[in-house]
Amino acid sequence: MRELKAFQAKLYHNIPLVKQMQLAIQNICSNKITAFAPIAPNINDKATVFGGSSAALMTICGWSLIKYQLESFQVDNDVVIHQSKVDWNQAQTDDLIITAKIKSDINWPDIISRLKEKNRAFRIKIQCEVLNQKQQICSQMLGSYAVLKK
Amino acid sequence: MRELKAFQAKLYHNIPLVKQMQLAIQNICSNKITAFAPIAPNINDKATVFGGSSAALMTICGWSLIKYQLESFQVDNDVVIHQSKVDWNQAQTDDLIITAKIKSDINWPDIISRLKEKNRAFRIKIQCEVLNQKQQICSQMLGSYAVLKK
Repeated sequence: MRELKAFQAKLYHNIPLVKQMQLAIQNICSNKITAFAPIAPNINDKATVFGGSSAALMTICGWSLIKYQLESFQVDNDVVIHQSKVDWNQAQTDDLIITAKIKSDINWPDIISRLKEKNRAFRIKIQCEVLNQKQQICSQMLGSYAVLKK
Repeated sequence: MRELKAFQAKLYHNIPLVKQMQLAIQNICSNKITAFAPIAPNINDKATVFGGSSAALMTICGWSLIKYQLESFQVDNDVVIHQSKVDWNQAQTDDLIITAKIKSDINWPDIISRLKEKNRAFRIKIQCEVLNQKQQICSQMLGSYAVLKK
């Protein structure tokens, strides 16, 4: 829990837009992250969630899921998003629940040893969603991220 | 020019994230928009442009291109993004030039009369790019937007 707070504090410090969107990470496990963001800083002209905000929030949640895991193994390789596909299904008028899940089975210790011993880059696909307070999916993103060589 | 300033002021008022990203629209014509954003409010942990910022900036530029044209014909139908595909090609370490172009030939007077007289929704594809100060494409987005019925 302390690690999660420290991770989020670093996120706010390093990426000012994440602070502005008031992303609050609630939980991270090995293959899933759950977060919250209020609608107020993410609102648009129609008093619904700005599509750019939901895309940016999903982008950072997918990234955080990978980065947090790497850091828990004392690995500090850079992580970047290189491709995404977003669908906005319905307008959202309330606060955002953001989730991101790793698409396929993943064995972190194997990946870590590949990174540390062989210094090989790898890619990982993450499925992200933004839900409203009724748990309806308002937007979703399939993001492909790269963990870079050192 | 005065209309452009008023349009941007409304954008800042209605969508706080756009103000935060310091998007500055430079020019809009019937099929293209050009804008600028400084890197500082859009930076990430690697001191490069945050992927979520570039996606959000392209999202709003494509939207603005359509919305501005509609408003110039006194049409106030809502415009929403419903799908996008983004590619981040290279890391960007300087200020952002954002462009958005309508993908196919478009006849605005025809579209306006379709909206006004027949009240038909329609979709429009926009190709967006973020360039660095050397005019290299750092990220690109194909966005599909819907102009909604009233």
